[in-house]
Amino acid sequence: MATSASDAPELVARAHDGDPRSLARLVSLIEDGSPRLRSVMKELSPLAGHARVIGLTGAPGAGKSTVTSALVRAYRDQGLRVGVLAIDPTSPYTGGALLGDRIRMQDHATDRDVFIRSMASRGHLGGLAAATPQVIRALDAARFDVILIETVGVGQVEVEIASMADSVAVLVVPGMGDSVQAAKAGILEIADVFVINKADRPQVQQTIRDLRNMLALTERAPGDWTPPIVTTIATTGDGISELVGKLEAHWSWLDSSGERGRRRAARAREEVAALALSALRSKMGRLPGDSALGPLADRVAEGQIDPYSAADELLDALTDGAPPGQHS
Amino acid sequence: MATSASDAPELVARAHDGDPRSLARLVSLIEDGSPRLRSVMKELSPLAGHARVIGLTGAPGAGKSTVTSALVRAYRDQGLRVGVLAIDPTSPYTGGALLGDRIRMQDHATDRDVFIRSMASRGHLGGLAAATPQVIRALDAARFDVILIETVGVGQVEVEIASMADSVAVLVVPGMGDSVQAAKAGILEIADVFVINKADRPQVQQTIRDLRNMLALTERAPGDWTPPIVTTIATTGDGISELVGKLEAHWSWLDSSGERGRRRAARAREEVAALALSALRSKMGRLPGDSALGPLADRVAEGQIDPYSAADELLDALTDGAPPGQHS
Repeated sequence: MATSASDAPELVARAHDGDPRSLARLVSLIEDGSPRLRSVMKELSPLAGHARVIGLTGAPGAGKSTVTSALVRAYRDQGLRVGVLAIDPTSPYTGGALLGDRIRMQDHATDRDVFIRSMASRGHLGGLAAATPQVIRALDAARFDVILIETVGVGQVEVEIASMADSVAVLVVPGMGDSVQAAKAGILEIADVFVINKADRPQVQQTIRDLRNMLALTERAPGDWTPPIVTTIATTGDGISELVGKLEAHWSWLDSSGERGRRRAARAREEVAALALSALRSKMGRLPGDSALGPLADRVAEGQIDPYSAADELLDALTDGAPPGQHS
Repeated sequence: MATSASDAPELVARAHDGDPRSLARLVSLIEDGSPRLRSVMKELSPLAGHARVIGLTGAPGAGKSTVTSALVRAYRDQGLRVGVLAIDPTSPYTGGALLGDRIRMQDHATDRDVFIRSMASRGHLGGLAAATPQVIRALDAARFDVILIETVGVGQVEVEIASMADSVAVLVVPGMGDSVQAAKAGILEIADVFVINKADRPQVQQTIRDLRNMLALTERAPGDWTPPIVTTIATTGDGISELVGKLEAHWSWLDSSGERGRRRAARAREEVAALALSALRSKMGRLPGDSALGPLADRVAEGQIDPYSAADELLDALTDGAPPGQHS
């Protein structure tokens, strides 16, 4: 028998009223790709749309968790409620190890106005492209004012997730080591604010010059946003209030330029497309007979058919159900 | 007027005969998502299926390029023809910077039996999941015996690409720094062979113990492959022949266990699905009226409709073309 608390409208109402356990339950439903998500999302959608979403990304070792923690404190000092979603590049095979949660929750364990959750980067219905906007929507509907999305990896998916935020802060360290160099091309270009963390290390001025040179090469139309460069020492809190100020300025610009609406529409586009494609992907495997993905792929692997012809057959079977050969 | 050399059968025949310029042209067609790919793939498919595909992955700084170079030399010493495909995490916005190519080609510039190519990790029709198997097929049809796929990033996509290989070598460095820790969960589990490179550094024995402990925790059925651990100093060539031997042993196991066929079928499945999904994704944006992705996503962003209902409407429009409300 279902208890009333597991009923979708009830669960959403409780999360909206600030109950952290109901919110945690909602996020778990999203993580698990629960069939109840449909009814949950129907309830959540009208309640969301108010929170500011800030993405934090950068190579491992740049100090993302420390900066995130410092931002949580700064926003709490303003009286704002803060949600944190950390995307972990955990195993695609064994599910997410949520160690980070347990360690970091200790700082804010007694604060009902802070919610921290890790999410593994695999295993979601429709992938992170669908799950991330859903978790954002859940935190938003639970009346968090600021939602920080922290990505840990430096791959393409992480760049895409970070770019779902309203504002993206990209962290680098002075001198930029190998790994930052490797990731640079992908992550530097999505920055709305650059943060040179660990600014007590040598080569800060050189790193500022490097970033400025790179920015100078980017074409901008009048009225476009130019990413500012902030130096921080997150462990001591140095520079964090300046960072908060720059994020504030970006938020105002998003509003005045109309860019906020465009970014949110883009995020919704990715989400809806990911959900639809995920449904189509699973339908591909369930088609009857020789038009299903498995038998077609076997023929491709054996060189009997080329992949484009196989994809065509698959599309025909998906979109009208008629077996190949019966087309007019 | 099209010249005869740009004709698909002619181009494929020349690449098959060992002409590097024709092969380079084929890879460019794949990179560009050329409409001519259909006819090219039809010609290539029957010629492929012979090459051994070896994936190399690991965190930045583990020495992947040096190990790749050492493997190229080792296989060349056996008289084998070697193709290298390096997946670069280059910008999603400005396209691929192929600097790596130019630097590394110098070692093998005069050797027609070595082909090295970088590929950006974005911007391909159907994504890397479709482009990588196509480039593998092109190199295979051009009679390369061994194809090395080197991935540079440490994200989820890189793990997926590496796991398209017949054999996957995962590189770590002694002591395992932050970045390897971060990537560990995702990449260690796809390893068929572990390579501890830079084995002249301290903590090699500890790293071997760590990997062994991790392997001991993995359940294996009788007859399953247990990933061996090889130590190398790729700059001097130390350990490379042992690595080649372990890869050889894995190749034999793939054959005797039937796993090779399963991996190749899985690769073809990803490829065909990616091509079909890509076609569906672009169709989503072109649907007429309010059922297209854009207008539906706008309604989701404004909270007027939930994402699942939007995805349902989109699927209806995609699969039967009937406008919503006209269903029986």
